[in-house]
Amino acid sequence: MTYKKTLTLALVQHACSRDYPYNLERSLDGIREAAARGAQLVLLQELHSSHYFCQQEQSSYFDLAESIPGPTSNRLATLAQELEIVIVASLFEKRAAGLYHNTAVVLERDGSIAGIYRKMHIPDDPGYYEKFYFTPGDTGFLPIQTSLGKLGILICWDQWFPEAARLMSLAGADILLYPTAIGWDKQDETAEQQHQYSAWRTIQQAHAIANGIPVAACNRCGIETADDGKGQIHFWGSSFVAGPQGELLAKAPTDDAAVLLVELDLSRSETVRRNWPCLRDRRIDAYADLSLRYRDQIKTGRD
Amino acid sequence: MTYKKTLTLALVQHACSRDYPYNLERSLDGIREAAARGAQLVLLQELHSSHYFCQQEQSSYFDLAESIPGPTSNRLATLAQELEIVIVASLFEKRAAGLYHNTAVVLERDGSIAGIYRKMHIPDDPGYYEKFYFTPGDTGFLPIQTSLGKLGILICWDQWFPEAARLMSLAGADILLYPTAIGWDKQDETAEQQHQYSAWRTIQQAHAIANGIPVAACNRCGIETADDGKGQIHFWGSSFVAGPQGELLAKAPTDDAAVLLVELDLSRSETVRRNWPCLRDRRIDAYADLSLRYRDQIKTGRD
Repeated sequence: MTYKKTLTLALVQHACSRDYPYNLERSLDGIREAAARGAQLVLLQELHSSHYFCQQEQSSYFDLAESIPGPTSNRLATLAQELEIVIVASLFEKRAAGLYHNTAVVLERDGSIAGIYRKMHIPDDPGYYEKFYFTPGDTGFLPIQTSLGKLGILICWDQWFPEAARLMSLAGADILLYPTAIGWDKQDETAEQQHQYSAWRTIQQAHAIANGIPVAACNRCGIETADDGKGQIHFWGSSFVAGPQGELLAKAPTDDAAVLLVELDLSRSETVRRNWPCLRDRRIDAYADLSLRYRDQIKTGRD
Repeated sequence: MTYKKTLTLALVQHACSRDYPYNLERSLDGIREAAARGAQLVLLQELHSSHYFCQQEQSSYFDLAESIPGPTSNRLATLAQELEIVIVASLFEKRAAGLYHNTAVVLERDGSIAGIYRKMHIPDDPGYYEKFYFTPGDTGFLPIQTSLGKLGILICWDQWFPEAARLMSLAGADILLYPTAIGWDKQDETAEQQHQYSAWRTIQQAHAIANGIPVAACNRCGIETADDGKGQIHFWGSSFVAGPQGELLAKAPTDDAAVLLVELDLSRSETVRRNWPCLRDRRIDAYADLSLRYRDQIKTGRD
């Protein structure tokens, strides 16, 4: 393997306004700070340079999309080369006229594009109208080889699907990285909000546990109001990094911008997997039905 | 569906000695207490009537195995009929000469056998030499239909595999039930012990979250010493029930016997799944490789 045992990872969390250049500068500032503090790899939040426009379905927002390579990825590539770090950035990708994706691009230390991942699972819920904007990804669940290791990049809604994490780890991912944009609906009660937040962290920690690799999620903070002035999402920040047993290593605040720096020992995965040998014991002879929508045809006991 | 919206579930947690009849009485007493307190469904811990003999490989322990139906399942069936409750019991099953399984049997309120599940994932680690005793199950991941709903029964090591939980929920399981026997090795440091315990609870809470159904795990307590007088497991008890968002509803103590009673509202799963529609968005077109041992053949970026 080509990666170093130790990996210094930084997550750049910030609030976004409707001013695209301003948001991008927040990301660039965060990357510069991360590099100055010794980061080798920087993970940005989902759609880091725009407000979360998916709160409504509005055709004009397709104007925010860019090709890859394109102006924003070029700007990030220049910075990656200058600072000699790897950057994982989530962008609104224009692939062709009328064909758009929610895409993560990985920029190498030499400024080249190491690879892209197009969000495979697309949500659609009140306040998160993503199926309108984003064509489901066709990259499959493939980690991206970099000078620092194989990065298993997944995006937001992907984090609720254990299948995605497993496929990345089976393909050799050394770490799972989730750019994300999730928050509370102000109409929900406090207990429900707490359940949602806990579920979000728990399921990602479980991906680390099930696969014996570290997990990092970078989430935006701040309150954003929908175009109709009614809908409002309180993005819960709380970007975090968990080790290969799911143990919480670091966590950013709920409401403030942060550059969260963590030094990971990637060689721990070998130890953890030896002691908890899940990959050894998977019953691959009995998993075929995971490719079904539902197992309606199964007969159980007294059916 | 045939189940009631409300389900009162009880978990019977206790320590085991090397006295089989004594251990069985502890389970029967717990079932009686649970029924008296209004339980409709009782979940026993893994191998509830014997000490955890898998701390060593010793042929004579195969004498503990019984056929199903057999003396212990008959005794439980009689009690299920008497108390008019459903019992989920983990037994060491003798299926044929030299063919043994780690099997859960479900006893209906009328004393009949609703179905069995044979542990599919078999561990083998120092202190947990299960591959010597238990032939991997061939039941597949099928929930068992009962008068109270479809029970997705999985056993101990199964709890570390998201695939097992998913296959049960895709086949209509209303709840996941895990009889288990897990504890600390006294040689591990406190931080490592805490990581293991947290991982155990986290990954099962994540199965609830990923599938939008409640999860219950019943674990033994007590300290058991291996035949060589050296090995020792401190079973961590802490049986628990989580709701369909993974939220902890109830938890038993670490070191004491307990009958943990929880009233579940099974209809919440519908609400949770509407708000968090994971089953809608699974990318079944891209999951085929879950049936591979490892995705060695995959080419990534710069490989």
